[in-house]
Amino acid sequence: MRAARLHEYTTEMSNALSIDEIDAPQATASDSVIVDVDGAGWCQTDNHVIEGQWTDYVPQTLPMTLGHENAGTVVETGKEVSPVEEGDQVICHPVQTCGTCRPCRQGETMYCENAAFNGLTTDGGFADQLLTSERAVIPLPDGIDPAEIAPHADAGITAYHAAKKAVDDLNPGDTAVVIGVGGLGHIGLQCLDAMSAARIIALDLKESARELASELGAGQTLDPANDDVPAEIAAITDERGAAQVLDFVGADETTALAPDITAAGGDHHIIGYGGHVHEPSQALVDGEFSFVGNIVGRHAELQELVALVDDGYVDLHTTRYGLEEINDVAEKLEHGEIDGRAVITP
Amino acid sequence: MRAARLHEYTTEMSNALSIDEIDAPQATASDSVIVDVDGAGWCQTDNHVIEGQWTDYVPQTLPMTLGHENAGTVVETGKEVSPVEEGDQVICHPVQTCGTCRPCRQGETMYCENAAFNGLTTDGGFADQLLTSERAVIPLPDGIDPAEIAPHADAGITAYHAAKKAVDDLNPGDTAVVIGVGGLGHIGLQCLDAMSAARIIALDLKESARELASELGAGQTLDPANDDVPAEIAAITDERGAAQVLDFVGADETTALAPDITAAGGDHHIIGYGGHVHEPSQALVDGEFSFVGNIVGRHAELQELVALVDDGYVDLHTTRYGLEEINDVAEKLEHGEIDGRAVITP
Amino acid sequence: MRAARLHEYTTEMSNALSIDEIDAPQATASDSVIVDVDGAGWCQTDNHVIEGQWTDYVPQTLPMTLGHENAGTVVETGKEVSPVEEGDQVICHPVQTCGTCRPCRQGETMYCENAAFNGLTTDGGFADQLLTSERAVIPLPDGIDPAEIAPHADAGITAYHAAKKAVDDLNPGDTAVVIGVGGLGHIGLQCLDAMSAARIIALDLKESARELASELGAGQTLDPANDDVPAEIAAITDERGAAQVLDFVGADETTALAPDITAAGGDHHIIGYGGHVHEPSQALVDGEFSFVGNIVGRHAELQELVALVDDGYVDLHTTRYGLEEINDVAEKLEHGEIDGRAVITP
Amino acid sequence: MRAARLHEYTTEMSNALSIDEIDAPQATASDSVIVDVDGAGWCQTDNHVIEGQWTDYVPQTLPMTLGHENAGTVVETGKEVSPVEEGDQVICHPVQTCGTCRPCRQGETMYCENAAFNGLTTDGGFADQLLTSERAVIPLPDGIDPAEIAPHADAGITAYHAAKKAVDDLNPGDTAVVIGVGGLGHIGLQCLDAMSAARIIALDLKESARELASELGAGQTLDPANDDVPAEIAAITDERGAAQVLDFVGADETTALAPDITAAGGDHHIIGYGGHVHEPSQALVDGEFSFVGNIVGRHAELQELVALVDDGYVDLHTTRYGLEEINDVAEKLEHGEIDGRAVITP
Repeated sequence: MRAARLHEYTTEMSNALSIDEIDAPQATASDSVIVDVDGAGWCQTDNHVIEGQWTDYVPQTLPMTLGHENAGTVVETGKEVSPVEEGDQVICHPVQTCGTCRPCRQGETMYCENAAFNGLTTDGGFADQLLTSERAVIPLPDGIDPAEIAPHADAGITAYHAAKKAVDDLNPGDTAVVIGVGGLGHIGLQCLDAMSAARIIALDLKESARELASELGAGQTLDPANDDVPAEIAAITDERGAAQVLDFVGADETTALAPDITAAGGDHHIIGYGGHVHEPSQALVDGEFSFVGNIVGRHAELQELVALVDDGYVDLHTTRYGLEEINDVAEKLEHGEIDGRAVITP
Repeated sequence: MRAARLHEYTTEMSNALSIDEIDAPQATASDSVIVDVDGAGWCQTDNHVIEGQWTDYVPQTLPMTLGHENAGTVVETGKEVSPVEEGDQVICHPVQTCGTCRPCRQGETMYCENAAFNGLTTDGGFADQLLTSERAVIPLPDGIDPAEIAPHADAGITAYHAAKKAVDDLNPGDTAVVIGVGGLGHIGLQCLDAMSAARIIALDLKESARELASELGAGQTLDPANDDVPAEIAAITDERGAAQVLDFVGADETTALAPDITAAGGDHHIIGYGGHVHEPSQALVDGEFSFVGNIVGRHAELQELVALVDDGYVDLHTTRYGLEEINDVAEKLEHGEIDGRAVITP
Repeated sequence: MRAARLHEYTTEMSNALSIDEIDAPQATASDSVIVDVDGAGWCQTDNHVIEGQWTDYVPQTLPMTLGHENAGTVVETGKEVSPVEEGDQVICHPVQTCGTCRPCRQGETMYCENAAFNGLTTDGGFADQLLTSERAVIPLPDGIDPAEIAPHADAGITAYHAAKKAVDDLNPGDTAVVIGVGGLGHIGLQCLDAMSAARIIALDLKESARELASELGAGQTLDPANDDVPAEIAAITDERGAAQVLDFVGADETTALAPDITAAGGDHHIIGYGGHVHEPSQALVDGEFSFVGNIVGRHAELQELVALVDDGYVDLHTTRYGLEEINDVAEKLEHGEIDGRAVITP
Repeated sequence: MRAARLHEYTTEMSNALSIDEIDAPQATASDSVIVDVDGAGWCQTDNHVIEGQWTDYVPQTLPMTLGHENAGTVVETGKEVSPVEEGDQVICHPVQTCGTCRPCRQGETMYCENAAFNGLTTDGGFADQLLTSERAVIPLPDGIDPAEIAPHADAGITAYHAAKKAVDDLNPGDTAVVIGVGGLGHIGLQCLDAMSAARIIALDLKESARELASELGAGQTLDPANDDVPAEIAAITDERGAAQVLDFVGADETTALAPDITAAGGDHHIIGYGGHVHEPSQALVDGEFSFVGNIVGRHAELQELVALVDDGYVDLHTTRYGLEEINDVAEKLEHGEIDGRAVITP
């Protein structure tokens, strides 16, 4: 079968991956599931992986097939698989978990101590087929197109995960700030809107992104290049600040907003990772706010997000590309030229 | 009456405050309470106030009587005061709150929008008498000496507040790390021990502090100058890291431990404010840990801490000094020469 | 001034209250607030009070002016009142709290140990003026008519309070059941819809109520007289049951649904109190569900509900009556002949 | 191998089970684990099963080997088992879970939709060997005797589970009430004491049980036969009531205590199931307390309890009996003649 693989780290996106012909995977373990990939979302993290930015954090062996946002059709299952069978349409959580370590027992599947992460530590889904396990797949409700929902497997649950943590502390009348209304941010905004009655302020440098935010539920938008963000948020919130801030950028300039825009007791969620957190400890003490790290959502959260999508709460803008166009996609994203989410359809 | 007042910001502790003769306070408001000060704890924050380190964070008018850890005897009350009466022994929460703003309604008295903070924004208790309000005082159980419990009014509840947030996420078998076993740290450690069954590791550069930690409930102690802290914590926790870290130092070197010692989903609590937080956003994302700011505990938490003390869970080491010795105390603390907590007894 | 007062307990609604001419209240305490009543909602609880059903639970002295759902205009304030001034339009939380007992400190204002409850333990608002305190009033946003919002002061926050507890445990894809779509139920349903993405099933014997439920956000409605409720809910929820049940009736037949319709780990909230809870302990153990008592919402929750109303999330159907029609209202409600909520406009 | 099996429901304990010679189990599934049973606790629930009291709640096929509190030594594993290997000493959670249903994903293993419960719905451990799965076993720390810890597999985690829910709402100074200091109650009491700084009041009819409670951490004990329980608890708690009540009896008389002894906002936990809950809905509304159902603790909670035992927080009184004495044990327990917990050692 065909697979788009990374052979060496590079900053040259135009030929980052090569389309190799490799052996199709086999369902050798009792819980194996082979999925015919109908859609595989391209993610900013794919660019980071290509550049080698994840080598300090996870073990990687090259060559590796990238692609961690996959959905498709089950074509083969291991001998003891019960939740799905051949022909089922599924979305694939990117993390294949053991089910027996303590974090798995607690439902904290993202902390699995024996995990494999598609396209990050093991072969992913920019290929005709993907080998995964019964613990990683979720059957799709009728009427949901795998290629349409694929990006939710990572972009979606990452945004959902942060939004879900945030809504726990959002009362009616409280303000939530969304920084960056891109691939993840526009999903996070819709999740906040669906799961809370908070007032939402969206920040983005691009006018089109701010317009999208308004359509999707933001009551107010700000342009950091021209607006005095702390002053505006203070005015809107009666000087209280935002109870929850979802920072989908994570750059030095966005994390630096925290002491000025976050309410006492509030959280500045770090989801994007474009830069650093740098603050005096005294600022955190005086304002009693937190910088909250956010990883990909857990398996049960992907189930919840599928329900949100099924119930019509979340729209996702996608554009489809063939497997052979994959390096074009990488390069376009690098230059901010992808509108909505790019989905590879092998 | 006598009052130890700051007239100008200085780094010279030896004559930082002057003992002035000023008018005694009057119970002019319906909820006023005048307390004869039996004990007033000296806190590292007093040194910071003297140096002007708080001017960026709160409004201050000099001269001001310092002292925010007060306990004593009620000598006069406003016309509508009901929870206490003349002769009652009380501990004084340092924050006088309005009771009608939204945070007060929620029980978040530290976020009161109309607050006065003894010795920080209004006159404090390094004086013969303190003017406060019925919303700030807590009657003491029989048998508790005001001069003995006074430091709990700030040091105590700050440590308790952080410990209480931490125990919410500490299961039996989990590990909590206490960084810095000084005035606050040794209280925080006892609170963790009383309110959870977690395993406690204490870090301190001083051998005497580590010994104290062992006596007070730490199962293990580490010396950051000689031990490889991340390696030791990894070994003790089966590579999982500490579920909760209470950083009573807050220096660059201690906050930098977070990604290496904090478990996935865990918190690094910032209580001390000796330096900065500085991390790549990616570290917070990959490890899904948080830097959690911690301010002084709220009023209800001081009630809980008084119960903890009354029930024998928390020991406090104090040394008493006369009001006239106050600048000696300031200087000794600056040089780390105070054992336990210094209490001024006007 | 005129006041509709209860002189003796009776089951005869047609002349339950008499319109007396009594002295207008005075702002004698420093925190007193006198409100000119623009609207006072009539509540099922008023009928229960008239019948003497509350004498076992709270102290009452007759004669007493009833009316606990009040909104109007401030006409006089005590000497130290700061949150409101003459001319402000306000909604009045029915409970006047002390602000200094432990529950008040925790924000649990409904558990205040020195509380007075308008129209239940002290004179209420079926009168030209109401005496309350600064701790009980909430200024209204511009454009909100006091007579329109008055019923939220009790019916509204009771429904909101239960809904808020429920949404903490409602994930997308989960099911919430609302039993009884009357005065409280139709508010609770809208609150659930605004604050969660759960799927809502509404039960009511009346077709008009089921139709209202559908308009307000219920995805499904059931008629307990004709539908097999447990079987329908099992089918809708894939045999899992409802994660949260809000029982606005509280009759023997509705509480008896709990073991059959509540999901493992779920809650059956008791809000209405028309009957009993009666179950084998083993049913609660086997299904691990809870019967959760719900009282009126706390002060901060009324602030949140006002924000919900201001943001357009909650519609309330009201009909207005003059003070002289008050016994007609009592009798009509007794016979289920009031559509929406009756508001007395003195 | 030998197995103590129930062939028909009976109230005659003296020959309830017969010791049959049956085939030893085989590790046929990839995740099978065969355990040589070193200890199997006898539980009140075994008596209930023998009497047929569980037939309304779970599917049962007779004959069935009873015994759900098992610990022992792994003697054989399925082909893909990784967390344990032959020779490991383990405690067996009584519920064998699928790991792939939604509750398992959430860590709510007790709600597994494809579960088998040892000795309740499938063969248990009153036998030489037990067939279970890798998802049900927990390796024991060095130095813990399987026969000593076996009863924690059900009695222990049931008590721990309820205590863990309770401590979330127990602040220092709050009061917890333990009703019934028997097999489960004496464990629950120790768990409360280890995980909170609450004040504990224990109720039991037997003087020896009250003495045990005092030794294990109860600050006060009451004898329901002679003490006025509501009056005593009101006096001890300053009229506030107990924040949390753990009812290990669940009889009509003990659940009836709830409105009189539970604080506003508090919980009456139902763990024992000797009778009914019967209250007016109005009592739950007025007092805003809840009846909280409690099932056996989940898998992760058994891990936590093993840590508690390993750290010396929980003592368990056991007496050992041979497999051939099993009907004597059943009869003795029926007559309240077992001191501590009976453990069968096949």
